[in-house]
Amino acid sequence: MITSIRTRVAIVGAGPAGLILSHLLADAGIESIVIDQRSRDEIEHTIRAGILEQGTVDLLTAIDPNTRVHTIGDRHDGIELRFQGEGHRIDFPGLVGRSVWLYPQHEVLKDMLRLRLGAGQDLRFGVTASRVEDVESERPRVFATTADGEELTIEADFVVGADGSRSVVRPAITGDSRSGYFREYPFAWFGILTEAPPSAEELIYSNSRNGFALISQRSPEVQRMYFQCAPDADPNALTEEQIWETLQSRVPGTTLKEGPIFQRDVLRFRSFVAHELRHGRAALVGDAAHTVPPTGAKGMNLAIADVVLLARALRALLNESDERPIDGYAEQASRRIWKAQHFSWWMTSMLHTAPDASDFDHLRQAGELRSVVESEAGRTFLAEAYTGWPIG
Amino acid sequence: MITSIRTRVAIVGAGPAGLILSHLLADAGIESIVIDQRSRDEIEHTIRAGILEQGTVDLLTAIDPNTRVHTIGDRHDGIELRFQGEGHRIDFPGLVGRSVWLYPQHEVLKDMLRLRLGAGQDLRFGVTASRVEDVESERPRVFATTADGEELTIEADFVVGADGSRSVVRPAITGDSRSGYFREYPFAWFGILTEAPPSAEELIYSNSRNGFALISQRSPEVQRMYFQCAPDADPNALTEEQIWETLQSRVPGTTLKEGPIFQRDVLRFRSFVAHELRHGRAALVGDAAHTVPPTGAKGMNLAIADVVLLARALRALLNESDERPIDGYAEQASRRIWKAQHFSWWMTSMLHTAPDASDFDHLRQAGELRSVVESEAGRTFLAEAYTGWPIG
Repeated sequence: MITSIRTRVAIVGAGPAGLILSHLLADAGIESIVIDQRSRDEIEHTIRAGILEQGTVDLLTAIDPNTRVHTIGDRHDGIELRFQGEGHRIDFPGLVGRSVWLYPQHEVLKDMLRLRLGAGQDLRFGVTASRVEDVESERPRVFATTADGEELTIEADFVVGADGSRSVVRPAITGDSRSGYFREYPFAWFGILTEAPPSAEELIYSNSRNGFALISQRSPEVQRMYFQCAPDADPNALTEEQIWETLQSRVPGTTLKEGPIFQRDVLRFRSFVAHELRHGRAALVGDAAHTVPPTGAKGMNLAIADVVLLARALRALLNESDERPIDGYAEQASRRIWKAQHFSWWMTSMLHTAPDASDFDHLRQAGELRSVVESEAGRTFLAEAYTGWPIG
Repeated sequence: MITSIRTRVAIVGAGPAGLILSHLLADAGIESIVIDQRSRDEIEHTIRAGILEQGTVDLLTAIDPNTRVHTIGDRHDGIELRFQGEGHRIDFPGLVGRSVWLYPQHEVLKDMLRLRLGAGQDLRFGVTASRVEDVESERPRVFATTADGEELTIEADFVVGADGSRSVVRPAITGDSRSGYFREYPFAWFGILTEAPPSAEELIYSNSRNGFALISQRSPEVQRMYFQCAPDADPNALTEEQIWETLQSRVPGTTLKEGPIFQRDVLRFRSFVAHELRHGRAALVGDAAHTVPPTGAKGMNLAIADVVLLARALRALLNESDERPIDGYAEQASRRIWKAQHFSWWMTSMLHTAPDASDFDHLRQAGELRSVVESEAGRTFLAEAYTGWPIG
């Protein structure tokens, strides 16, 4: 059986970008359908990190004044940059009047799913999109298959690819799923979850001769920590003792609070920006459009900045037949994306030790970190980017 | 004939560092001898570029209130960063209350030579130092040969290597003339001097897909311009027409004023910091201690910052027998040196196109430049470094 549905905006992907976009469109009276190949349970229980910029939190609060960001989220007023054995705090409110929130992505998803379903959003789980056609016409179509194996065709005024880095919408926009600007990094992060009290109140970004480490938090009982490793490292090759030894050696000056390690993973680093962000009646947002290394904590925030711009453009296009904002979407989004790509690259290259790094490179990094922490302008420049540039 | 002389401080090298040091020491009542293998004429007529930081100009003014910096030098209140075809001015006084001065190094040398010789400084030209010995004793010695082929031994309380990147004093401090932190760059600058009116009032640092260009000035009738080239480029391989075409293509948006090209050269890029800056009774300053790529305009300024610190340390050591400042010299100087190494690397890497640069790299650079110019903090961070951090 082939079911055909008609809607105004077909959104592929029920991640933060897709869900928030459906909310912003509904706010503008524009009907949409959101499909995702995963089940609701899978979406809500895939544990993901999350640092929310001030602007992201402001938006979530505007969407739902009772958002749990303010209850179970944790406001962070700074980070520590550590190098040559010394810690230097970057005081966000003091420098830029803004903060960030530690609030995992899966919690944002739980909030948004409850909210959208409560508002009657047409939101379909277990629906796998296979391709998008006719984006150059005014009736682009998404072809998909439901969990029951039924074929589903969604005809819309506009199609949005919010379906992550393996986007199936992307080829309809770029002409080729691999078409984009790439950068690979010669390292990855070895991440752990441990049952232990926090070793620090705020994130510590530590540069050391042996490599980078990030001391992060999750809750009063569970901590998240990372250390730089080879891209092909095997997460099971180290004993717990070796993991703690490695982490400890990279954060000289702090004694980490150890506990049982109950999760370990290796996160690869990749930078990517699609060659085209919009073609005809289709556009990309979030990881479908770009990925960044995790060092700058920009991933989810950048996705949300995309949808704010896109919602505004779709409102003009679909409610007022004004094509200018959608014609400017790619260029406007690109400016923020490339600033974020730079920031993510900068934090990565300033803090990590490249496998072929010389003593010169390492001392230059220390000179860079010193230039930043000793200068109010340097600290402000970093804090502006970390807490997020204004959207739009 | 072997002549032996006794002095308090033996300074090898009559460049800006050596000459200014002799002045600061004389001010503190400490006698010194300055030797240089070049003739006075050679020193005064080797044409060198020069951007003086605010602090450097303040020091030259304190040394001689009538310094010609203020008459024939040219105060610059900003630079332009150009990328993606658009220029963005960095307003130095508006951001940091400081400026820089375009005042070539050979003019600084003329001023300082006249001043030191007028003050009775023992300043010997055509004297080639060959080695330094006994730096671990309280009577280090410099062995040299005069222009007449006579051997000269200078016994001093302290020896200073201000003798440039091929320093003969360096091995007595580092144990090996090549002992240092190095970085090579995969490009150089093709520089020209042309008889033409200025194409711009201030320096233009231009990033383009084809490579970097710097539009600089020398006088109302003579201009200095550079473009990025291969390190092994032959300065005579291009016609004047090809040179102008290359320059023009790298500064889109400005029509350069052309004129006859009467000098052309290729400047290689290298970063270097000696492993040790001081050992026993000997220390290094300026290019003997470090070299930087020219993009950040830091060379001469860094040399002068070194001698301000060293003069203070020698005053404590020789007038008050206080060894603490000289024991701290290397560490204190290093902090500024590594910040300057970073700044020079930053300006270089942000503005040049590496031979293997991908489209991603180029767009990330544009994202970096955009982040800097769109942020007051970013512009301030750059202006602080360009106009110079406080000395000491």
